[in-house]
Amino acid sequence: RIMRPDDANIAGNVHGGTILKMIEEAGAIISTRHCNSQAEEPCVAALARVERTDFLSPMCIGEVANVSAEITYTSRHSVEVQVNVMSENILTGAKKLTNKATLWYVPLSLKNVNKVLEVPPIQYTRKEQEDEGKKRYEEQKLDRLETKQRNGDVIFPIINPEPHTVGYSQSSLIHLVGPSDCTLLGFVHGGVTMKLMDEVAGIVAARHCKTNIVTASVDAINFHEKIKKGCVITISGRMTFTSNKSMEIEVFVDADPFVDEPRERYRAVSAFFTYVSLSKEGKPLPVPQLLTETEDEKRRFEEGKGRYLQTKAKRQAQMQQAAQQ
Amino acid sequence: RIMRPDDANIAGNVHGGTILKMIEEAGAIISTRHCNSQAEEPCVAALARVERTDFLSPMCIGEVANVSAEITYTSRHSVEVQVNVMSENILTGAKKLTNKATLWYVPLSLKNVNKVLEVPPIQYTRKEQEDEGKKRYEEQKLDRLETKQRNGDVIFPIINPEPHTVGYSQSSLIHLVGPSDCTLLGFVHGGVTMKLMDEVAGIVAARHCKTNIVTASVDAINFHEKIKKGCVITISGRMTFTSNKSMEIEVFVDADPFVDEPRERYRAVSAFFTYVSLSKEGKPLPVPQLLTETEDEKRRFEEGKGRYLQTKAKRQAQMQQAAQQ
Amino acid sequence: RIMRPDDANIAGNVHGGTILKMIEEAGAIISTRHCNSQAEEPCVAALARVERTDFLSPMCIGEVANVSAEITYTSRHSVEVQVNVMSENILTGAKKLTNKATLWYVPLSLKNVNKVLEVPPIQYTRKEQEDEGKKRYEEQKLDRLETKQRNGDVIFPIINPEPHTVGYSQSSLIHLVGPSDCTLLGFVHGGVTMKLMDEVAGIVAARHCKTNIVTASVDAINFHEKIKKGCVITISGRMTFTSNKSMEIEVFVDADPFVDEPRERYRAVSAFFTYVSLSKEGKPLPVPQLLTETEDEKRRFEEGKGRYLQTKAKRQAQMQQAAQQ
Repeated sequence: RIMRPDDANIAGNVHGGTILKMIEEAGAIISTRHCNSQAEEPCVAALARVERTDFLSPMCIGEVANVSAEITYTSRHSVEVQVNVMSENILTGAKKLTNKATLWYVPLSLKNVNKVLEVPPIQYTRKEQEDEGKKRYEEQKLDRLETKQRNGDVIFPIINPEPHTVGYSQSSLIHLVGPSDCTLLGFVHGGVTMKLMDEVAGIVAARHCKTNIVTASVDAINFHEKIKKGCVITISGRMTFTSNKSMEIEVFVDADPFVDEPRERYRAVSAFFTYVSLSKEGKPLPVPQLLTETEDEKRRFEEGKGRYLQTKAKRQAQMQQAAQQ
Repeated sequence: RIMRPDDANIAGNVHGGTILKMIEEAGAIISTRHCNSQAEEPCVAALARVERTDFLSPMCIGEVANVSAEITYTSRHSVEVQVNVMSENILTGAKKLTNKATLWYVPLSLKNVNKVLEVPPIQYTRKEQEDEGKKRYEEQKLDRLETKQRNGDVIFPIINPEPHTVGYSQSSLIHLVGPSDCTLLGFVHGGVTMKLMDEVAGIVAARHCKTNIVTASVDAINFHEKIKKGCVITISGRMTFTSNKSMEIEVFVDADPFVDEPRERYRAVSAFFTYVSLSKEGKPLPVPQLLTETEDEKRRFEEGKGRYLQTKAKRQAQMQQAAQQ
Repeated sequence: RIMRPDDANIAGNVHGGTILKMIEEAGAIISTRHCNSQAEEPCVAALARVERTDFLSPMCIGEVANVSAEITYTSRHSVEVQVNVMSENILTGAKKLTNKATLWYVPLSLKNVNKVLEVPPIQYTRKEQEDEGKKRYEEQKLDRLETKQRNGDVIFPIINPEPHTVGYSQSSLIHLVGPSDCTLLGFVHGGVTMKLMDEVAGIVAARHCKTNIVTASVDAINFHEKIKKGCVITISGRMTFTSNKSMEIEVFVDADPFVDEPRERYRAVSAFFTYVSLSKEGKPLPVPQLLTETEDEKRRFEEGKGRYLQTKAKRQAQMQQAAQQ
């Protein structure tokens, strides 16, 4: 689909959240179709997890986004989908790979939303494909268990914060979940949540560095809990770490089923977004250092630094590998 | 236009904010057209004020909204527009008056946004029309000056609030101003702002009483300051007063021109919304009393009570007048 | 309503699809209202067909679209609606006729969606009006039967196509049908479908000629099959013919009711769109000739040429007639 002015920021770069939403829609369609192909009963695929995603090149207003999706692994109760996004400038014909993402879906029965159905197995052309898929499946399962720990955290508001402190840029957004945000089951599309998360992360980043910013990557996101139509969701973001040219923002989504539900507010999703600051010519700019004040802020900064260095090391290893081939 | 699921809450009642947005679009069209009819130079009419508005009957999904607008007074630099909204059930043919609103617009030059142009005078069929219009003009001018006082107020967040206190239901929403929110001048449409204000007020009301709620009326809203494309706006709402069957919510809009602008965050708009709680059959329900804690909350409650009694007295006087005629 | 940046392409010209959507909404309102005026039972008018439509002059961002609709003929089970769209520049006051369209609607019962209700007859001021209407009715009925043949066609993707071949510009878009796309009956609004069709046709045209393009006309569109909420629709477009200054694009809509429906994917709609290429000054530009490779492509090119010459002849006949009067 063609990128419109509302899909983009003032500098004309398409919001990462718009791309994440398209990716998730493609993933939801292909996995719902697959899970209904040998259906015991009709079902809808619900997003369980998105693997770490890099935004390889910014997309602009007027470009066409081509999204392609493929099922790459199935376990008994989950589907792995690989989605590629290409941006195409239809005036020059130039095409670029914008994004590669891996998503995990779980089929939920249309009749009973708490029932997880079985997934029809796919055929692999080579045995290694199945083995590699199984390895990815086990890894993400482990990671999902770990992130459950992080969920207790709350963002406290700060009065009259100093520039470049954590409190200065932290931001919250509330959203009333409407019908067009939801699947046939009446739960929020994972892509809608990711779009709102990117919006908050982008506001945090822009408040911190007061320049044009774009999403560089998103850490793995786990969707622990479904969010129902009619909920109010609060999406909160705070900066956790800055390197010379990047900012890491932690984003939480809390759901408040405030009408005719006995349930308390709960943490539905959390994730780390990485942003970079761009000059008018599209070159990366240095980022003001984040000033940490409390012990918690200092600890989170160090943890962010750890993630940053790990990612950097991984990327260098990949580049060396690629160079040797 | 036909009301869609996205225009309404879960109970199927169209959001007051959707109606306010349609009203403002109609007002902006008719006054921009009028101000350009004898144009010294091209201009766009900017919303300066909306008079107190009652929602006479709720509109539902599938109904058609008919909006009609008429210019009723012109001063040297402003235009008064009267807008009526009728809801029509196209299945039964039933029509109801949903809303009557009075809006004030000011023509701003397209070449120089800080230049207010002159308004071509309209012709009155009777001299009294002009005199009454002038009286309304003077009254609103006075009122606009008064509300400038209220602007310093800030909403402080409360941690772990008790149910039915002010802190329990207060809510904030942030919104990044995109191109489709804006006029040709690059400033936010007044109607877009009002829709977001109603959204926040509705969330405050629903959090307080945890039932289906609808907008009953909106106090006069003054638009002191323009909001530019690319700003982040924070819309905050807190409950100020409850009667047996209604809730008054104060809403603030603060604009933060956070990219390439030297300006500080500023208060752009503020207003009072009144909500009622409805049963599944659409009957008004009793509202839990607001628990006030601080001196400021108690003072605001008393002020709200004053506005409530004043409105009630005015309405009774009108009904007696109508009965006598 | 005022045209916004999101309604337009990069050059500021409003998408033909936005206009088609407004036309259809106006048609749906007036015909639903009419069919319920002497109601046996409540019904919703569903779009069955849109007659060939010319876009007489492009509309721009900031202009106001005035849409007016009138019922011009009723058969036992269908309503003919004539819709006119005027664009108004509210700064200069200039008005232009943008579009004239004829639409056919059929009333479907709200209680039983497969039941077509009877249409209350309208009064004609002159006998000839009824006769002409009847003639139009018979003609479109015949034409609808014929187009049913074309439905089996499928668009195959081509790898590494040469510029200006059919495969080079062909494009597909998938869309998950959400609640705000649908009528009270839970079926997609015809206008929503037409907007998506125009979007795909526009991408095909831009890929072919790599310039600013606008919709010049749309051939008659028949809506053979309803599309239900929750379906995935695939909209595919391929170029069929080029003249010196125009491109004809064939667009198919296939619906895939992939959840809780035993049904196969089916062809729901198809149509021909004609586009022209415009210079920066808004003048028509020459169009690169379409390179046809397969027998089917050559045949379709010849058929497109036939339609082009027929339309041209018809227009010349009308102009001569107009000149003689």
